[in-house]
Amino acid sequence: MKRRDLLKGAAAAGAAAGASTIAAPAIAQNRIEINMVSTWPRDFPGLGTGAQRFAERITNMTDGRIQVQYFAAGERVGAFDSFDEVASGNAQMYHGADYYWKGKHPGWAYFTAVPFGLTYTEINAWIRFGGGQELWDELAGGFGLKNLMCGNTGVQMGGWFNKEIESADDFNGLKMRMPGLGGDVIAKLGASPVSLPGGQIYENLVSGAIDATEWVGPWNDAAMKFYEAAKYYYYPGMHEPGSMLSCGMNKEFWESLSKSDQIIIEAAASMENDVMMSEYNAKNGASLAKLIKEQGVELREFNDDVYDSFGVAADEVFAEVVAHSDLAKRIHESFLSARSEVGGWAKISDVAYINQRNRVLGL
Amino acid sequence: MKRRDLLKGAAAAGAAAGASTIAAPAIAQNRIEINMVSTWPRDFPGLGTGAQRFAERITNMTDGRIQVQYFAAGERVGAFDSFDEVASGNAQMYHGADYYWKGKHPGWAYFTAVPFGLTYTEINAWIRFGGGQELWDELAGGFGLKNLMCGNTGVQMGGWFNKEIESADDFNGLKMRMPGLGGDVIAKLGASPVSLPGGQIYENLVSGAIDATEWVGPWNDAAMKFYEAAKYYYYPGMHEPGSMLSCGMNKEFWESLSKSDQIIIEAAASMENDVMMSEYNAKNGASLAKLIKEQGVELREFNDDVYDSFGVAADEVFAEVVAHSDLAKRIHESFLSARSEVGGWAKISDVAYINQRNRVLGL
Repeated sequence: MKRRDLLKGAAAAGAAAGASTIAAPAIAQNRIEINMVSTWPRDFPGLGTGAQRFAERITNMTDGRIQVQYFAAGERVGAFDSFDEVASGNAQMYHGADYYWKGKHPGWAYFTAVPFGLTYTEINAWIRFGGGQELWDELAGGFGLKNLMCGNTGVQMGGWFNKEIESADDFNGLKMRMPGLGGDVIAKLGASPVSLPGGQIYENLVSGAIDATEWVGPWNDAAMKFYEAAKYYYYPGMHEPGSMLSCGMNKEFWESLSKSDQIIIEAAASMENDVMMSEYNAKNGASLAKLIKEQGVELREFNDDVYDSFGVAADEVFAEVVAHSDLAKRIHESFLSARSEVGGWAKISDVAYINQRNRVLGL
Repeated sequence: MKRRDLLKGAAAAGAAAGASTIAAPAIAQNRIEINMVSTWPRDFPGLGTGAQRFAERITNMTDGRIQVQYFAAGERVGAFDSFDEVASGNAQMYHGADYYWKGKHPGWAYFTAVPFGLTYTEINAWIRFGGGQELWDELAGGFGLKNLMCGNTGVQMGGWFNKEIESADDFNGLKMRMPGLGGDVIAKLGASPVSLPGGQIYENLVSGAIDATEWVGPWNDAAMKFYEAAKYYYYPGMHEPGSMLSCGMNKEFWESLSKSDQIIIEAAASMENDVMMSEYNAKNGASLAKLIKEQGVELREFNDDVYDSFGVAADEVFAEVVAHSDLAKRIHESFLSARSEVGGWAKISDVAYINQRNRVLGL
C-alpha cells in the first residue's frame, strides 16, 4: 500500500466523523484490513505488478474502506510459505501459483497448469462453466482456503537450454527448473526437475547448479537475463499452456465478508485475470524480437518426436495423480472432459481462424 | 432488475433510517440510478443474459446503492436506438455491439470486430495495452460517450447457407445478414448485406427475405433455429473473429461518478468480458455436436480460395475506411500494428501449442 492511500483513508474517516459522530461507527464497522502475501518478487513485471495492481484495485474500489497491505515474497514470509500463512489465518490472502502446493495435494497443479493442459480461454471456460471452480473450492476448502482466478501468463515458452533438444534423450540427466506436473514429466525422461521461486533461478543457472530452466515467456524471461547463461529458447511449452494465477483467501475470512464485499473481490480478481493476460500478450512479441536481435538468442521449436515423448511421459504422470485419491481422480476427469470439449471447439474457432488469417496476411 | 432487489434496497434504506436519521441523507446522496438499454432480446443466451448479469453485478457490488434498471431491446427503445438514447442522456448506459454504429463513423466497427481482425485475447491486449482504449475514448468522446469492454462471443462461425460455398462467385447476388465491415466485404464479392438485430433474423431467413445469415456461433445459432431454414454451416468466420461487446455510457454521467464508482463499473464490465467469453467457449462445442447429430446440419470449412478472395475484398474495404477521416486512419493503423505484433505472438504461443497438443491427443 502506498502512503498516500493511507493518508486518504485517514482523511475520509476524519471528514465523516466531522459530518456526524453517529455515522462514524458505521464506517469503522465496515472497515476491513487485508494482509496479502505473494510468491513474486516486488515489482516483478506481470506476476508481481499484477498482484500489486489487484491489491490496489480492491482498496480503490472501496475508497479505502477495504485496506489491502501487500507483501512481496520475503517481505513477510518466503514465497513458498504463502500457503501456510493464509491457511493458518496469519494473513488473509495470497497471490501465487497454486501448483507450488502440489506436494500437499496433486490436485493443486490443475489450478495453475498441467502438461498438455488448457490455454487461457480454455481454463477460464472450465473454471467458470465446466465444474472447475466447484472442484477447486472442494480442494481448497480442505485446507481452509477459498481461491479465485487472478491472472494468467498465457502459453509459456518451453525453456532455456545450452544445447539443442533433438529428442527425449536430450532431457536425460538434465538438471532443469520446472515446477508442477511438468517437472514430473521431464523426470520421466530422466531429467532432475527443481522447483525454485522466481527470485532464485538466475543465480542457479549462472552458477551451473541447474543446466536449464523455464520461467514464463519472452517479456518475463528477458527481465531475468537468462540469455546470459543459455542460448537456445524453445517453444511451445507443453508444461504450462496457460498458467492461471490464484488469489487464495483464508476461508473463515472469506465467509465473514458481506455478499457485496465478496463480489467486489471477485470482480477485482476477475479484472486482473483479464488485464494480466492482456499485458503478456501485448508485450511478449516485442520482447521476443528483441531477445533474438539484441541478445543473439536462438529460437527453436520442439519437434514432433519430442512432443510425442512428452505425451507418453505425461500419461504416466497423470496415472500417478489419479491413483492419489478420489478427489484427484475427479479433478483429472473433469479436466479431461473440458480439454476434449473446449479444446475441440478451439480447433475450429481460434486455431482455424488464426491459421487462415495469418496464411492470407503472411503473418 | 428483480423485484427482490428492489425490496432489498428498500429494506436496507429503512434499516439505515431506523439506526440513525442523520446517516440517512448520506446514503441517499450516494445513491445512483442507471437506466441501461440494450441491443439484445431479453434473456437471449450469452449476449442478453450476460448484459443482464452485468447490470445485476453492479447493483450487487454496491449492495443496491447503484441501482441498474435493465431494458432489453424494444422495452424502452429499439435495439438500434440504444446509441442515441445514451448519447442524448435519456439513459445512462447501453450494452451492445459498437459496429452497429458504423454508419455514424466507420471507426466504431473496430471496437466490435473487423474482417481479418483480432481474436478475444488479441483484442483485449490491443484495448488495454496497445492504445485501443485511448482511440475508443477519442471516438466515443466525440459522440458524448465513454465505452468499456463488456463481453465477447469469440470467433464466430462463417454463417448459414442453403448452398455450398466453393468460391467467391457463390456470394454473387446473395442476400445475407452480416453487419459491420464484414458486410462490406461480401458486398465487394457481389452480395447484398443486410444488418438486422438478432430478434428479426429468423423470420427473414424463413420467409426468404434473406438467403443466408451469420449470427454468432453454435450455442446462439441453435437457439435461433436457423437449421430449420439453412443446411450448411461454415467456419471459420472471417468477419468477426472475436466480437467484443460494449458498455457505452453517457460521458457526462461517467464523469459525474466518483473514482471508486468508476472502478466498480470498470471491474464489473471487465468481469463480464471474461465470464461471457468463458460461457461461449464452454457451450459452443456441445451445441455444435448437437446441431450436427440431431438437426442434420452439415459443417463445412471455407476453402483457401474463398479466404483469399475475402482477403482481397477486405483490403478494398479498409482502404475506404482509411479515406474517411484522420481518426479512422489512426484507428486502422493502431489495429494493424496490434494485429502484427500480438497476432505474431499468437502463432508461436496458443496456435503452436494447440496444434501440437491436439495432434498428440488426436483431438
